[in-house]
Parts: sequence; C-alpha cells; structure tokens
Amino acid sequence: MARLKTIDYVNGKVQIIDQTLLPNELKYLTIETVNDMYDAIKVLKVRGAPAIGIAGAFGTCLGVADVASDATIDQFKAIFIRHADYLNSSRPTAVNLHWAINRMKQKLESLLPLNNIGLIRQKLLDEAVAILEEDRRTGRAIGEAGFELLKNTTTILTHCNAGGLATAEYGTALAPVYIGAEKGHIFHVYSDETRPLLQGARITTFELMHAGIPVTLICDNMAASVMAKGKIDAVIVGADRITRNGDTANKIGTYGVALLAKAHNIPFYVAAPFSTFDLTMECGEQIPIEERDAEEITCGFGKQTAPTGVKVFNPAFDVTPNNLITAFITDKGVITPPYASKIVSTLG
Amino acid sequence: MARLKTIDYVNGKVQIIDQTLLPNELKYLTIETVNDMYDAIKVLKVRGAPAIGIAGAFGTCLGVADVASDATIDQFKAIFIRHADYLNSSRPTAVNLHWAINRMKQKLESLLPLNNIGLIRQKLLDEAVAILEEDRRTGRAIGEAGFELLKNTTTILTHCNAGGLATAEYGTALAPVYIGAEKGHIFHVYSDETRPLLQGARITTFELMHAGIPVTLICDNMAASVMAKGKIDAVIVGADRITRNGDTANKIGTYGVALLAKAHNIPFYVAAPFSTFDLTMECGEQIPIEERDAEEITCGFGKQTAPTGVKVFNPAFDVTPNNLITAFITDKGVITPPYASKIVSTLG
Repeated sequence: MARLKTIDYVNGKVQIIDQTLLPNELKYLTIETVNDMYDAIKVLKVRGAPAIGIAGAFGTCLGVADVASDATIDQFKAIFIRHADYLNSSRPTAVNLHWAINRMKQKLESLLPLNNIGLIRQKLLDEAVAILEEDRRTGRAIGEAGFELLKNTTTILTHCNAGGLATAEYGTALAPVYIGAEKGHIFHVYSDETRPLLQGARITTFELMHAGIPVTLICDNMAASVMAKGKIDAVIVGADRITRNGDTANKIGTYGVALLAKAHNIPFYVAAPFSTFDLTMECGEQIPIEERDAEEITCGFGKQTAPTGVKVFNPAFDVTPNNLITAFITDKGVITPPYASKIVSTLG
Repeated sequence: MARLKTIDYVNGKVQIIDQTLLPNELKYLTIETVNDMYDAIKVLKVRGAPAIGIAGAFGTCLGVADVASDATIDQFKAIFIRHADYLNSSRPTAVNLHWAINRMKQKLESLLPLNNIGLIRQKLLDEAVAILEEDRRTGRAIGEAGFELLKNTTTILTHCNAGGLATAEYGTALAPVYIGAEKGHIFHVYSDETRPLLQGARITTFELMHAGIPVTLICDNMAASVMAKGKIDAVIVGADRITRNGDTANKIGTYGVALLAKAHNIPFYVAAPFSTFDLTMECGEQIPIEERDAEEITCGFGKQTAPTGVKVFNPAFDVTPNNLITAFITDKGVITPPYASKIVSTLG
C-alpha cells in the first residue's frame, strides 16, 4: 500500500500510470518518444492539470534525446521548439501544459550560450525534474497545512479527484489525507462518484484504496443523507480557478456540496496551490463555465441511458461563492476570511 | 404527442408498456396469462407502486379466465387464490401489489354467494378496472390541486420518476404538468437523472418528451447550479412514505434537493395520494431505509466504473424533514403547515 506515482522519472526514463485503464487495471507505461507522450496526454493516459504540465516538460526532453552531438545549437533549438509546439497542441485548453512548456522553452534560451548539446540536454532534464519536484513540494505543503486544520477530525467528504493522480503524487484535496497517513492519523474518506465522468468513482477511490486509506463511494445525491447522519466532519475539495474575492470554480456539483455542508454546519475547505488563484479576476461571475457534450450524460458508459434527442444541460464546472468557504488550504498556508483582502495579501 | 398509458384494459385485454426497453424503444405488450403478468412485474416491465398494484389486480382476473363454467365455486376460488398468491410473490416488498391483490381476494369472498362463475369473473374484472380508474382519478385530483398552486410558474425541477409511468396515467409529481398541458399552460421541466438507477434520465424525460412537454436532463449534482441561475420556480417530487408530522421518505437525493431549494428560496412541493401517508408513524426517524447492492453504483451501466471491492453506501431513499416542505399536494387537496395537526385532520 503506497501513494501512487502518477508520473515519475526512473532510471533515465519517464514512467506514467495509464489512467484510461483505471479502475480496472494499474499499468505503468514507460514513455520513450515525443509521439508516445503526445498520445498519452491526448487520450488522457495522463490527466489532471499539474500532471499534464510535468508530462509536457519531460516530453520536450524526449524530443531532443536523439539529436546527434555534432549537430549545431541552432539545429538543436529548432528540433526542441518543433517538438515542444507539437506537445503543446495535445490538450489546447490545459493551462499547466502551456505554462510548463513555456518554462522549458525559456530554460533552453538561457542555456544556449553554453554551446554544448550534451550539457544543455542534461540541464533541460534537470528543469523537468525540478517541475516534478516542485509539484511534490506544493502537494506536501498543502498537505501539511491541511492536516493541521483537520487533525482533530476523522471523516471527510470529497468531490471529484483532486488527488495524487491529478498531480505528481500528493494531490491537493487529498494531500492532508496522505500527510495524515504518514503521521499515523487515518482519515475515512467519503468519495462522491462525480457525474458525469465519475472521477470520484474511478480515480479517487482507486488511489485511496491503493494507499490503504478507508474510502466509501456514494452517488452525488447521497451526500446530504450522509451529512444528516452526522458522518462527515469536514468537506475538502480542489479548485480549477479562484478569483481575488475567493469565489471558486471547481468540478460541477461542488457548489451543491458547499450548500449542503453549510446546512449541516460542516466546515468546507478548498485546497489549491498558489497557481490556481487568478488575481486578474475580481469575482466568480467573471469565470467562464464550459458546457460539454450531451453524450457525457446520455451515453456516458457506452450504453444509452436517456431518450435520443433529449435536451441536456451539462456544465463542467460551477462557482462556489466565497461565503460558503471556511478556509483555503494553499502551499503558502491557510487563508481564512475576509478573503477580499487576505488572498491578495497572502499571494499577491 | 400524448400521455402514455402505462397499463390499460383494451378490447378485453391487458396492455402494458415494456419499461425495460425505455428510453430506447416504446413497445406495448398484450398480457394474456398469469405467468406473463408475473414475469412483467418481476423483471420490471411494469414498475411504480400504483402501476404494479393495477397489474396484479388484472393478473388475478387472467388467472381465472379459462376456468370451465361447469367448475364448482370451490374449485374456482382455489384457482383464483393460487394465482393471486403467485402474483403476490413477484415483488415481495411492493405494498401496493399486496394491497390490490388483497382487495381482489376480498371482492371474490363477497361474490361467492352469487354462485355463478361467469358473473363472478365479470365482477372481478370490473373491480380491477375500478382500481385502474381510481388511480387515474387520484392522479387527476393531484394534478388539479397542484396546477392551482403552480399555475403562475413556468419552470419546475423534479427528481426520479413520479410520473405517469409509475401509475396508470397521470402520475403524482408530474400530474400538475399534464393537467397544465390540458389547460394550455406548458411547464418546462428540469429532470434530475437520479443515480444510481437513472429513473429521471430514462423514464421522466421519456414520458414528458412523448407528451410534448419541454424537458431538460441534468445530472443530480447540477441542480444547485440551475437554481443559482434563477431558472427554477418550484420543485415538485413524489413520495414513498409520509409520516404523521409530514417527514417524507422518497428516492435518494430528494432531501438534498429540498435543502438546495431552501437555500435558493424556491418552494418545495411533495405530491402524493392519500395512500402514501402512513399515519401509524409519528416521524421520519421511524421509517426504515433500504440499502441496496453496491453493484448498482459500481456497475450501473453494464461497465465497471469503480474499483473491485470498493466499499459503497447505497441507500435507496432518504427522509426530507417536514420543515423543508412548502406544501403537500394530495388527492384530498393541498396541505400546508403546521403538518402535525393538518395531515391528520385532512386525512385521518
């Protein structure tokens, strides 16, 4: 029983978990070419914004692994940029992917004066490893801060997957659970299945079971019942984007869970790294909400479960207003209300 | 476009909709034998407590259709009872089935003095038709009362299927929608898909689309978002059991919807016939809540969507406390708080 390593660099090779096979099979893939990494990102073998960024960074290194040592620096750079841009196109909307690939490009620019392909190649790889290690440290920092908040509780509820399988290792919402386990404090986690794509049922339960953490799967519409029975001490979720005033966009259903938590006087925490806060936006009304295909709801599991042609509303995210959030757990520490001033003073 | 006839008696034959084929195919079956009726109830070709009761009543008539006219009354009675008990075993927990079959048995007892097999057979059939017609009248009465409450609204949200396909024709929660359509008032219905068994996605959307009523399907965890956008004027749901104080057991997820409605100041109505009120119970804590198989959640769509061996909590119902219910819409009229006195005075 151990935390899963979503993506890792082992003996000179990039290793990922093929998440398309979860929860039915745990299979590690060794990725050795740019094309394989592009494919892994494209078809969601690796998923979760931070994990995709790390995958992209390693992918740029794979792209220059075979460049001959007698190539010119200009040739080396051209090959690197071509592969980087190709990888960047694998998930057009994944912010972390673009961020990580741009960081690798900037690193290359700073290394060009070395004029030594072998050395540049090694230092690019060091940068990808650094991105991986920073993500681990971010997860640990969130976990440590969150565990301090939660250490007197036993049972938490989470929605979707903001766990290790979306990042390098610890995750965000689940990081305090993993840190707790390291310290001998075992939480019991209730996992919403999280329709339509079932990230809770497929991924959160899988990674917690693998780590030996007790987990109970429920349908989204059972959360209120579980709360009413007094079973939930705290709710903790991840975030996709947090505005200056603390309004939080996250997986669809999060807002409902926050309202249910409030109705039962259960604290509601949002765990997220510094990079999830978007200080260019004042409040949640400014966050664009993606609407996705009806088929995710009507044929989500390969079998048609609603009438042909039925009208569907399928928003991918919702916005939880700041007044429903007890605290933010970040890699820079815990932020409590009033958020309008404290988010900027902590992170700005 | 028309209301569906879930079960009907046409030209001397019992006709049902095969609900196991919904939403992909609308097929009517003519049921001509006790064995076919037993099978139809057992495998959920006909479902919904009132509809099952009606099916059982007609089934007892099919069981004596072929008894020779020179049989003795004792022989006729023995055959009737044997078939009735067999039908009664098709769904052991369906209260309405037992109620309807007992009513048919009592009717038979009262008819025995006629000492005329042909006449008794006809009067038993009249009784089954009476049960069907009573259910239609109950639905219409709920619909008329509910439409008076809702006629100044446009958009309603419902959970699960308390529609025509659970009864003879009008349903309970959807009855005001059908009565509205008769009067030229077209509601727009949001239908929660209702995990794990998806009655909302499969059945509510189907019957409303068939009747030409605009309906939008959402996942259960999207209801809060839709409410926050100001789209919902009222919530209306059915009920499985209502206690003396108004606490209401209904399909899992109903309690959560009631809390969300309250948080958005949206009225929350429960539509149910007189027979759903259980005056032997004081309050919701006394209602037993059935827990169902994990597989409904982990393999609900024919494909495994959660890890093998994951712990699951799968309650079939929850209890909405009376203080979240704006009014009950019954076949005896609308009941508003305080429920502790008014339920008994209206129905007792």
